[in-house]
Amino acid sequence: MVNALDRTVFEALFEPRVIALVGASSDERKHTSRPQRALRKHGYQGKIVPVNPKSREIFGDRAYPTLAEVPDEIDHAFLMVPAAAVPEAIEQCIDRKIPVATVYADGFAETGPEGRRAQEELVAQAREGGVRLLGPNCSGILSTNPSCALSVNAAIEQLDVKPGPLAVISQSGSMTGGLLSRGLGRGAGFSRVVSIGNESDLTVAELTDWLVDDPATGAILLFLETLRDSERLAAAARRAVAAGKPVLAYKLGRSDVGRSLAASHTGALAGADEVADAFFRAHGILRVDNLETLFELPALLAKRKPATRHRVAVLSTTGGGAATVVDRLGTLGVEVVAPTDSVVDALADKGIAIPRGPLTDLTHAGTKAEVYGAVVEELAASDHCDLVLAIAGSSAQFQPEITVEPIIKAAERGKPLAAFLAPHATAGLNRLAEGGVAGFRTPESCADAVRAWSRWTPPAETPEPDLARLGAFGEELAALGGRRPNEAESAALFGALGIATADAIVLPNAAAPDAVGKAVEYPVVAKVLSSDVPHKTDAGGVVLGIQNAAELADAVRTIRRRVGETHPDAVVDGILVQRMEHGLAEVILGFRRDPEVGPVVLLGVGGVLAELYHDIAVRIAPVGLDEAKSMIDEVTGLAVVRGYRGLPPGDLDALAAAVVALSQLGSVQAPAVAEAEINPLLVLPPGEGVIAVDGLIVGGEGQEAP
Amino acid sequence: MVNALDRTVFEALFEPRVIALVGASSDERKHTSRPQRALRKHGYQGKIVPVNPKSREIFGDRAYPTLAEVPDEIDHAFLMVPAAAVPEAIEQCIDRKIPVATVYADGFAETGPEGRRAQEELVAQAREGGVRLLGPNCSGILSTNPSCALSVNAAIEQLDVKPGPLAVISQSGSMTGGLLSRGLGRGAGFSRVVSIGNESDLTVAELTDWLVDDPATGAILLFLETLRDSERLAAAARRAVAAGKPVLAYKLGRSDVGRSLAASHTGALAGADEVADAFFRAHGILRVDNLETLFELPALLAKRKPATRHRVAVLSTTGGGAATVVDRLGTLGVEVVAPTDSVVDALADKGIAIPRGPLTDLTHAGTKAEVYGAVVEELAASDHCDLVLAIAGSSAQFQPEITVEPIIKAAERGKPLAAFLAPHATAGLNRLAEGGVAGFRTPESCADAVRAWSRWTPPAETPEPDLARLGAFGEELAALGGRRPNEAESAALFGALGIATADAIVLPNAAAPDAVGKAVEYPVVAKVLSSDVPHKTDAGGVVLGIQNAAELADAVRTIRRRVGETHPDAVVDGILVQRMEHGLAEVILGFRRDPEVGPVVLLGVGGVLAELYHDIAVRIAPVGLDEAKSMIDEVTGLAVVRGYRGLPPGDLDALAAAVVALSQLGSVQAPAVAEAEINPLLVLPPGEGVIAVDGLIVGGEGQEAP
Repeated sequence: MVNALDRTVFEALFEPRVIALVGASSDERKHTSRPQRALRKHGYQGKIVPVNPKSREIFGDRAYPTLAEVPDEIDHAFLMVPAAAVPEAIEQCIDRKIPVATVYADGFAETGPEGRRAQEELVAQAREGGVRLLGPNCSGILSTNPSCALSVNAAIEQLDVKPGPLAVISQSGSMTGGLLSRGLGRGAGFSRVVSIGNESDLTVAELTDWLVDDPATGAILLFLETLRDSERLAAAARRAVAAGKPVLAYKLGRSDVGRSLAASHTGALAGADEVADAFFRAHGILRVDNLETLFELPALLAKRKPATRHRVAVLSTTGGGAATVVDRLGTLGVEVVAPTDSVVDALADKGIAIPRGPLTDLTHAGTKAEVYGAVVEELAASDHCDLVLAIAGSSAQFQPEITVEPIIKAAERGKPLAAFLAPHATAGLNRLAEGGVAGFRTPESCADAVRAWSRWTPPAETPEPDLARLGAFGEELAALGGRRPNEAESAALFGALGIATADAIVLPNAAAPDAVGKAVEYPVVAKVLSSDVPHKTDAGGVVLGIQNAAELADAVRTIRRRVGETHPDAVVDGILVQRMEHGLAEVILGFRRDPEVGPVVLLGVGGVLAELYHDIAVRIAPVGLDEAKSMIDEVTGLAVVRGYRGLPPGDLDALAAAVVALSQLGSVQAPAVAEAEINPLLVLPPGEGVIAVDGLIVGGEGQEAP
Repeated sequence: MVNALDRTVFEALFEPRVIALVGASSDERKHTSRPQRALRKHGYQGKIVPVNPKSREIFGDRAYPTLAEVPDEIDHAFLMVPAAAVPEAIEQCIDRKIPVATVYADGFAETGPEGRRAQEELVAQAREGGVRLLGPNCSGILSTNPSCALSVNAAIEQLDVKPGPLAVISQSGSMTGGLLSRGLGRGAGFSRVVSIGNESDLTVAELTDWLVDDPATGAILLFLETLRDSERLAAAARRAVAAGKPVLAYKLGRSDVGRSLAASHTGALAGADEVADAFFRAHGILRVDNLETLFELPALLAKRKPATRHRVAVLSTTGGGAATVVDRLGTLGVEVVAPTDSVVDALADKGIAIPRGPLTDLTHAGTKAEVYGAVVEELAASDHCDLVLAIAGSSAQFQPEITVEPIIKAAERGKPLAAFLAPHATAGLNRLAEGGVAGFRTPESCADAVRAWSRWTPPAETPEPDLARLGAFGEELAALGGRRPNEAESAALFGALGIATADAIVLPNAAAPDAVGKAVEYPVVAKVLSSDVPHKTDAGGVVLGIQNAAELADAVRTIRRRVGETHPDAVVDGILVQRMEHGLAEVILGFRRDPEVGPVVLLGVGGVLAELYHDIAVRIAPVGLDEAKSMIDEVTGLAVVRGYRGLPPGDLDALAAAVVALSQLGSVQAPAVAEAEINPLLVLPPGEGVIAVDGLIVGGEGQEAP
């Protein structure tokens, strides 16, 4: 799955020796004149070849009428011609065997179906011809050592770009300059910056993968509106974690309006936000909530891997200033730990008395370099915490030597250290950046970063497929011959996966209900069995609490009559008679293939409240037992079966096993099963398991999800 | 309740003509030498009188051994002596009739009970002697025109403080300098800055009240850890709204750890965060979530009152940049409106085509002053929106004239205008500040501010007390003779307030259960009636679903036996036999007297889930019908009776009336009723009302809350 880094294409993209600017203008007022100026301004040492039939020379460089006439071997063609002229230009690139072409023109997939078709044709053309495409709708790229500012972006032309370890890939072309600018403003340095455009060929995923192996890049920052090519992105992210190069994502689409903006902007689907979270979590990508955290967090993670413990120690010269961060950390569920006796004693030996509470508030008295330094060193050395949050008050603005220098020194011990400066302290923040220490300008980005660090876990291990059960499942499914399974058939499929279902029998359409008593214990529930009746209760197709055969006969008649009225054209396979079950809680357990990230498994509390409170846990499927257990812990409403307020606990082991079992559908390639939902799955007392009482499986290929 | 502004004390505090620095040091390394330097540095024009037995002159000013010897009439005594010496110093202030004394020493109420006692004595002494106290544990004050930098705070000495309309009152002494610094960094100017210390005498509330009438102050910013003197703060805030001077609060204590930090720091109780929200909302105080929003928001609100509609129109030259704000606004529930036909047409007439969606994305083509200007003017003039959110991309950094100047011009039309600049654009932000336009440095503070503006409602009207019902209630309560009401008595009390309760009778301890059938319809519930058995179900004191007299007799025996075992010492008043009711939903309706903000009414969904999801609405009590209805809309779980997914709606009018009725307890002075809770209150179909099925009232004075 992972493409080996193709040095020729990577170099052609980021370190081209010869660049053709197709459609370059000699008119300074046009943005098509900009790449040439930007390249020169930033010190590009290679050869620039403008291609424009109207000029022989542009800004001192010899220009040619078409690519065909250019004598040099071109690495990178930057196409600034209108959309309609792009296919011809690509053809010329193919003829000249140019490895990479960047397409600036918009009017492709982001505009709708016609544009999408044009884009697909372009990609097919380029791939057949051996040319890799960046874009379309792409403003360009920037590299630092060696310098290559190949972009129509005005900001890129105007900014003074400090080299450094951060690579940025942005799905928003118009925001690329803003991102670069903000990062520079926070003292960051950059290796590569890419406006990825429509990702028609070269994707965020593929570039991320290449950047893992780029020696100039230490961290990869993604500004995302949607997730494409997610399998490859997952693999690249995992390699990044192994390589000690954190991948950070800022992703839009947390709200409905945000998702619709992304959809209209990119022409792509923007899925549910918690699915994106599940994806990032599964593959070791850190998600930031605040924009600036994208640039401030990498220093905290440089060359690190996810930590196994996340205890945060806090010191400050201002209690109020510390509280602005710690209070927020509390709302984010991040634990702050008090100093241990050995820390307190070690400092007492140095004549420094610190309080015993979770905040080591040095107050005004601690605003001396020897005191602040001794405390931050002690915390950085102590094994009672995994990260030190060092906060400095007003002195950080005018006397940064009191706190900032000791912070930088303490960071040399290797423990992650996050610094928040309470006042407006530009010099202090710059000094921290210089010193390689993660400094945060606002309490909110500081808390966001510490939260992200504390949630950063190693990529999930993909559990082995349970071949026996998947085999049994496959056989049951095949027996249906492509037909959509009804409730009883779905139950059998869940059973094949190893999920217990309520005892039931099916009364075929002609049968009398006498046989039930021995096969299924009373009381029972009777339900119409028909793929054409999705909302059985509304259709009058359900009768509960049936105590005996006489009542069952009544119920069967009632159901047939009512469904005959509400769904006269429905094909009814029979009546499902199911033992009535009771549990300590009802959950929804679902599986689906998300268009952005692939197979996911979901667990939520049952009933209307689950929707209202959005109380669900989502993971990339399949999951193992540990991950299933963490899902159970994550669903707030399941506290009722976790022993909350002395309520009897449920069989959480069985619930976890059921989650694992259903998630196994993710081990099977699409489209065998598109979607599956058990609702409700009853949780019984410990030792008694869980029982699926209703559910449906939707096959792939041509069958619509319910 | 509102103290008329005492010009002598206000002037003595902020514009003293003669300042005594008691305990001033001639040693530059000591912070007790700082106020003198700070005053001079910032251009104080009055007379400085150091008081120190050891020196005759300090830094060029004639010094005196005690206050007694000072020949001048002193306005403000700044006491920098140790805590133990403060009472003597206060005595000298009393002798010299000094209006205001600021106490810098810590070691008072913030340290514990002993310190609290010393503080109370100090206040008593000062009040008796006619001296107003600021502090203790107070680092000082700063005024600009005229200048008075009377502070031991190093930051205040070092900062260049620009005069302007913002007043700051901070409960965190160590954060005061940081706040001032950040505000100045964002281009704000200040009138008065106060570190309020322990608020032993002069409180946040009283100073806020004074500042409403201070011509130099246009907005009042509060940095809070706890709420004291809330009645006076409420009154001051209401006057502020009427005066067009917004009061903004940043309050710590959203998390448990945050609240405990505040409590240990201030020695004061920090209450539940939603109660603080209710307080701010009721009195027209805007709460900000992000620290910097405190300084960036005032310009959006200057001289304004709360708006009646809150439709936000958005324009941008960068879609991605706009999305960082709009996506967040979506998660905060703020509505963004698309341009109307008349806006689109008016711009089309000028040759400018804008999209029809909610984001007016001008893209790169719109990055021209004429285009941006025409669009922002059109939105500012149009009556389809109430606020314009103007976003500018990279051009804002190097060509601010393209977007920033047009924004400033459009703001002259008077509509609230919020500006977010996507890149690092210090000059642009400074220009906006200069131009009096609210500019936001991060997408998060921008969204926070727009949210705060959109939630800003006029102070709630306090409804008239329902004297008839309160009278009936009072009589029922008095009849108990101070005894804690049991469930039946509580039900009668709720009934007196006008809240329907389930039909019930009490079987006295000796009676047989035969009488029940006519008085209360079967099926019934039987519950033990005893104030000594708070958790009846756990105690075995409840039997449900009793169908007839025989079952009732059994139930009574069972209850007596079980309660006899679980609570052998309980005094049992009898057995409450109540008709079994069913509703569409169960709610919790509560009332209590919060130690920080006074009477509050709470509405939440019933059952364990309410606690888990914290799904409650809180208001300052009493409330009127409109406020009660907004509470119903706010509780997510009540969607089930608001017509969600076609579920039958409940009698929301009756529910609102019940909320109003219970909240009336807030019209009665404490301590008549300390706390009341109806749990559950069943919501029936429209026209059928609501029914209280269980609940308790806790009286004041000496009775513990359940």
